[in-house]
Amino acid sequence: MPTFSLGPNQYGKAETRIVRVTRGPGGDGLTDLNVSVALRGDLAASHLTGDNGAVLPTDTQKNTVYAFAREHGIDDIESFATRLARHFVESQPSIHGARVTVEQYPWQPVDGRHTFRRDGGEIRTARVHFDASGTQVVSGVRDLVLLKTTGSEFHGYVKDAWTTLPETRDRILATSVNAAWRHTGASFGDARAALIAAFADTHSLALQQTLFAMGSAVLAACPEAVEVKLSLPNRHHFLVDLTPFGLDNPDEVYFAADRPYGLIEGTVRRDDDVAEEVVWSF
Amino acid sequence: MPTFSLGPNQYGKAETRIVRVTRGPGGDGLTDLNVSVALRGDLAASHLTGDNGAVLPTDTQKNTVYAFAREHGIDDIESFATRLARHFVESQPSIHGARVTVEQYPWQPVDGRHTFRRDGGEIRTARVHFDASGTQVVSGVRDLVLLKTTGSEFHGYVKDAWTTLPETRDRILATSVNAAWRHTGASFGDARAALIAAFADTHSLALQQTLFAMGSAVLAACPEAVEVKLSLPNRHHFLVDLTPFGLDNPDEVYFAADRPYGLIEGTVRRDDDVAEEVVWSF
Amino acid sequence: MPTFSLGPNQYGKAETRIVRVTRGPGGDGLTDLNVSVALRGDLAASHLTGDNGAVLPTDTQKNTVYAFAREHGIDDIESFATRLARHFVESQPSIHGARVTVEQYPWQPVDGRHTFRRDGGEIRTARVHFDASGTQVVSGVRDLVLLKTTGSEFHGYVKDAWTTLPETRDRILATSVNAAWRHTGASFGDARAALIAAFADTHSLALQQTLFAMGSAVLAACPEAVEVKLSLPNRHHFLVDLTPFGLDNPDEVYFAADRPYGLIEGTVRRDDDVAEEVVWSF
Amino acid sequence: MPTFSLGPNQYGKAETRIVRVTRGPGGDGLTDLNVSVALRGDLAASHLTGDNGAVLPTDTQKNTVYAFAREHGIDDIESFATRLARHFVESQPSIHGARVTVEQYPWQPVDGRHTFRRDGGEIRTARVHFDASGTQVVSGVRDLVLLKTTGSEFHGYVKDAWTTLPETRDRILATSVNAAWRHTGASFGDARAALIAAFADTHSLALQQTLFAMGSAVLAACPEAVEVKLSLPNRHHFLVDLTPFGLDNPDEVYFAADRPYGLIEGTVRRDDDVAEEVVWSF
Repeated sequence: MPTFSLGPNQYGKAETRIVRVTRGPGGDGLTDLNVSVALRGDLAASHLTGDNGAVLPTDTQKNTVYAFAREHGIDDIESFATRLARHFVESQPSIHGARVTVEQYPWQPVDGRHTFRRDGGEIRTARVHFDASGTQVVSGVRDLVLLKTTGSEFHGYVKDAWTTLPETRDRILATSVNAAWRHTGASFGDARAALIAAFADTHSLALQQTLFAMGSAVLAACPEAVEVKLSLPNRHHFLVDLTPFGLDNPDEVYFAADRPYGLIEGTVRRDDDVAEEVVWSF
Repeated sequence: MPTFSLGPNQYGKAETRIVRVTRGPGGDGLTDLNVSVALRGDLAASHLTGDNGAVLPTDTQKNTVYAFAREHGIDDIESFATRLARHFVESQPSIHGARVTVEQYPWQPVDGRHTFRRDGGEIRTARVHFDASGTQVVSGVRDLVLLKTTGSEFHGYVKDAWTTLPETRDRILATSVNAAWRHTGASFGDARAALIAAFADTHSLALQQTLFAMGSAVLAACPEAVEVKLSLPNRHHFLVDLTPFGLDNPDEVYFAADRPYGLIEGTVRRDDDVAEEVVWSF
Repeated sequence: MPTFSLGPNQYGKAETRIVRVTRGPGGDGLTDLNVSVALRGDLAASHLTGDNGAVLPTDTQKNTVYAFAREHGIDDIESFATRLARHFVESQPSIHGARVTVEQYPWQPVDGRHTFRRDGGEIRTARVHFDASGTQVVSGVRDLVLLKTTGSEFHGYVKDAWTTLPETRDRILATSVNAAWRHTGASFGDARAALIAAFADTHSLALQQTLFAMGSAVLAACPEAVEVKLSLPNRHHFLVDLTPFGLDNPDEVYFAADRPYGLIEGTVRRDDDVAEEVVWSF
Repeated sequence: MPTFSLGPNQYGKAETRIVRVTRGPGGDGLTDLNVSVALRGDLAASHLTGDNGAVLPTDTQKNTVYAFAREHGIDDIESFATRLARHFVESQPSIHGARVTVEQYPWQPVDGRHTFRRDGGEIRTARVHFDASGTQVVSGVRDLVLLKTTGSEFHGYVKDAWTTLPETRDRILATSVNAAWRHTGASFGDARAALIAAFADTHSLALQQTLFAMGSAVLAACPEAVEVKLSLPNRHHFLVDLTPFGLDNPDEVYFAADRPYGLIEGTVRRDDDVAEEVVWSF
């Protein structure tokens, strides 16, 4: 067999599930994370000959996640991810870049002491990329499902031979927000609040317009944020035709469709001249 | 081929997704449901010869769900399910029993006007069975995830040749509550609050004990409730052994396991002499 | 709080994932299972006071699954489940009934030696219930997805004020077969082949008719089978209306819908006088 | 609010489910697809002001998928995706780039006439990117689950203070293959066969080595393939410690773990000087 070239590659332990409890006289604290590590570096030998002399096993990465949680605690997921990413690069000569991705599952205190209720659905995320050029941090949220019962139009679009969609001046607009912002210290709460407020307050002529408003709102609320990426599925709600049953349907009864769905993806940046950074890619 | 007998059977339209908006000057309301219908009756001919003279098509059932939402509104899911179940039986001579199962997805108002946020995770449920003997109503909740950081022990159990589990006087107890209660008008809010409070307040010597306390709490809080069924997965959180890294782990860092898991299922009844009712079965 | 009664209950370890390799000179064998155990018995004290003196921990159940796989091997999932169920009842005075549910994931040999490919989708199942009255065995299959491009009609059904469905003399019929048969030694291969052949060969006037034919075929093919339960979702495929684009659509281009779907459930029995057996219930 | 910049963006209809039946005297044919379209172009106005004059609605894209399936048929998913991508760019002045992603669900003929069985699990994929610079085609497969019972070692890796993993000379190696290859006409069957054979035939010293062998095998088998990307989760199978029960476990009984898992990702290229092409990115 001819020899081919090794291109971009990374490896690591994905989805290490860690729950950390902080014990205190005034009640316990709970942090519930899903941590994924990916490392890059001098990994050609492992691929070409199976020589693992440069490979820090994924099992060791998992152990490090647990040990660091005990040794250093978890202030916020951005700090925890940064500490881990730096560690792998700085302690291993063969590892030149590390990215650590963390999902945080929110819980609500029930009794202020020891009991918590999982606040389902929405998940907070962070991704940190560390290499010789420095640290990049992306924070985000996914599965944040929002719906507006009005204040959404869609018209003035291109018509061609395959167009059947009627224009509308009033429709339900619903989406599951997947957003991430690259930043140097933005407040998660401020960014999240900005996303929700922009969705609510924008009279929408297109989900694209809402997307741009949401991204802009994060940048306006968070001076430390540089750019925002959003992926917004258009969760269609179709007004049911009740005329066969002698009933009108004045924007009241809808069918919530599963598939297909529109998918609007875009980036909003503070400045024009932002290059595409490595933290976003593969 | 010899002829065999037709045993218990039912059919219907499952998972009709309906979102109903109530429009008002003070802001809109939102009801988000997943409705499943199952009908029973004179359905032998359809099975034996394909004669559909007694079959109300599942497509018609779906239409009826939408039309009833417009015509009668949706007060609560128990009433909506009852109205539908009665309708199918009372309007169709061939249909002798109907069960309607509804899942309700909760939403939180965002701005008090038109925007809502999906309150993920926990789902409210109702099942109504209607036939000549009357109406049976079961209400419930599922995917209500609760966790206690302490106040849970497990010891004194049977040991045999396959036992390796050490006894514990302090562990995390976590579960995803799936509960349903048969009743004649119990308040959903009271039942749900009772479940959560009992989980929090019971010093647990076994998840079975917590289960019985939770069921009892629903019965105590809701005089209209007759019996409660609970299915509680024991979502294991294992303390990570950090001694290889020279670290102790004083009930702080846990691994949240996926599988396997304990599964504790049980029924709590107001009285001893309750027969197993049809609404629970098949 | 008043005292209430404990009704039906069971507990056990769910979803123990076990892969067993048999090593041999002619190539290895692979068995991939998901085993769930549920035990019943003198469990009132555990529920009422947290006294676990009668409780065999679920962790021990898991250990037993692994140990038995090594000690006794796994001939077929029915035998493996039976051995486990008998063991728990016969070795534990407090346990009076055991049900063991097994899912088997099929794999195809790739090279006849050591490599296998997961044959996705369809899953073989078994459930064994053992108590003082004896052993009951149910075998089955789920997620067996079948589709007919023709040979399916639907007409002659009830019409009411909510009917809009047009009758059809030719449609796609598709379902995901969930079938289980109670038996005393039926061949899994014969039962599965009978299900598929009956689906293919029955000219269908209703999915109910197809269901009855499939159940009857299993009973005809397997003298050891007593009754068959089927749950068949009607996976709707809707012909797309292409007339807006100046195109006909002669039963060629379909939209495969997700929800809602019809759900047809029924039982076919060898004899009329079969009681509902415990193995089927909770 | 200050004005920010619009960065990379795209939009389209995702997950249009289409089943196409070809009718013939010798039996029917079945093609089952999930088609996602994403368009790029002069979309700033839609984002900034809600002016949709350049927007071809996602609903129209869906219609086009169905109409093209009828008008032009579906030879293979690469051709179908290419035809659609070209169409959107060439017919819409505002659309400068289109990518069409197709998943194909395989079915097996049952009776050679009208009945088919879904061949679950493994999914064939294609992605086509078309713009002024030409057409790029990536084909692939995902959820192809492979397992070797032996022929896999892992040792010689880096040890640090967090290492506990013992070296092994014999372990189970299992993965769910997600592979995609950029090409100009490679045979899907040849590529898939090469992936499977390389997994089976490579005596593995690291999953990285197996990954490189699999990518190389595709390039060797398909002269039209330029580069291959693989994402291989390491589905850990842990030998169960049976010594507490007085049993040995000579590589026979394993626990199949869910999470965490290793994740090995890499690229294999025909030549060193391949730039990262647009078809791979966002």
